[in-house]
This record gives sequence, structure tokens and C-alpha cells, in this order.
Amino acid sequence: MADRKANATWNGGLKDGKGKVALGSGLFEGAYSFGTRMGDEPGTNPEELLGASLAACYAMALNATLEGNGTPATNVEAEANVHLGKDDSGFVIKGIDLQVKAEVAGLDEDAFSDIAEKVKQTCPISKALGGTKITLHAKLGGA
Amino acid sequence: MADRKANATWNGGLKDGKGKVALGSGLFEGAYSFGTRMGDEPGTNPEELLGASLAACYAMALNATLEGNGTPATNVEAEANVHLGKDDSGFVIKGIDLQVKAEVAGLDEDAFSDIAEKVKQTCPISKALGGTKITLHAKLGGA
Repeated sequence: MADRKANATWNGGLKDGKGKVALGSGLFEGAYSFGTRMGDEPGTNPEELLGASLAACYAMALNATLEGNGTPATNVEAEANVHLGKDDSGFVIKGIDLQVKAEVAGLDEDAFSDIAEKVKQTCPISKALGGTKITLHAKLGGA
Repeated sequence: MADRKANATWNGGLKDGKGKVALGSGLFEGAYSFGTRMGDEPGTNPEELLGASLAACYAMALNATLEGNGTPATNVEAEANVHLGKDDSGFVIKGIDLQVKAEVAGLDEDAFSDIAEKVKQTCPISKALGGTKITLHAKLGGA
């Protein structure tokens, strides 16, 4: 269906080297480094890019599923918080918290929760992320 | 260690609605839609963001591993190609091709391939992507 590209380069050592990452659409190119990934230096990092991918996919899929259910959302907001840590295997994504809020008329909180959980199983990006735990916190409500 | 955020919003129906996705660093905010994800309209999509996350993580991890091996790379390039498709479960990431090129002195192609494969098992983003297949094509060579 759709093939999408992105690329990255790295020059120099781990601690003093410089990375550059770019989207295939050409809409974003950003610098990253040990300091922007592990510390607080300004720049991007793979974790926020992963979070953006998941949040964007989830928001779109939740909207589509609510629409298919006959209860379309006026607005969907999703925020992903990606936790990078360490375990015995080295660096690891320890988990992703996904905070979701949607404005939906004619749906109670329980029915909404069921749909939101189902979308976690059907959104292609969350399906691809089978090697980490995604914790969903979904609630009805306006912005 | 590090918590990284990103968020997305969706307004309107699946086919005519509008999405917006933003990195927590504030460095990028982009529009996406049914047409930018499934078609050729200009804009971003979750798949290129996922590819950027993997390419950036892999390039950094390969560099670090080569450095730890005493054979540092002068330059590492990684390109991810993310394939969105459909199967019986609906939309799915059918696989990710990861093309990698590195300039490394004092390492033959076989030893480099072994390290490149090992990094696929240790890069935190590729570990998180346990629900899809990553196919690695790694070779030595300059830009």
C-alpha cells in the first residue's frame, strides 16, 4: 500500500559524535546526539519520534473506529510518553504511556473504554510495537 | 532515564478529517490525513516517523557497538523503509527494510555483518518493534 522512508546518519564517537535524522517527506530534519537522547540538551531523539508515530496512528485509528461505530468523535487527542531505561539486556524501551482524550456524543465511559482498548490492538503502529508494553489511559472529555 | 513525549490530534472524519502530530522537543509539528498516509498528498504519516525513530536509534547503536569493538566507524548511514499494508487483522506494518552503510577501518565484511545483526537485537527501538519483521541489509562502504 504505502512505503515510507526516513534516514539517519551518525558521525564521530558515541559521546562526542553527531547524528542527523530526516523524514522521507522532507518536512523535518533534526540533529541528535548522546546529550539530546540521554540528557537534556536541545534536539530530537528516537524516543520522541516513536511516540509521535504511535500517537498519530492511534488518534487516527480511534477516530476511524468511533466513526465506524456510528459514534464519531468531534476531537481526539493522544499523547505518548516513551520511557527509555536499562535492564539486563542493555538499553530498552521500558514502556509507553498513551494518554487519550476524545469528545464523543452518545457513548458512555465504559463503551468508550472498550473501543479505546480495541484500537490498541488494531492500530498498525501499536501492533508493530509488540516488544514493549503500551499502557493506555483513555477518557471521554473535551479539550 | 529519559522520558520523551509526543502528541497528536485528529479532528473530523477518517476521510475528510485533519491530523496534527508534534514532537515533545517542539522541533517539529506536521499535518497528516488519510491522503498523506494512504495516498500521495504532501504531509507526514506515522510510518515515516517510525522509520526515523528506528534509523536514528540503529545508526547510534551501531556506532557505539563498533566503537566498543575497537573498530570505530567514520560514518554510519541508515535508511528505514516502512511497509504499510493489510492482512486479515486489518492494517499492519508488513515489515521494515533497514539499509545500512558504514565506513569502518580494520573490519572485514563478515565481521561487520555479525556486528550489524547483533545491533538489530540490542537497539532499543528495534527491540520494541517485536511485532513486525525488520530486514537488515548492512554493508561496508563510504558515502
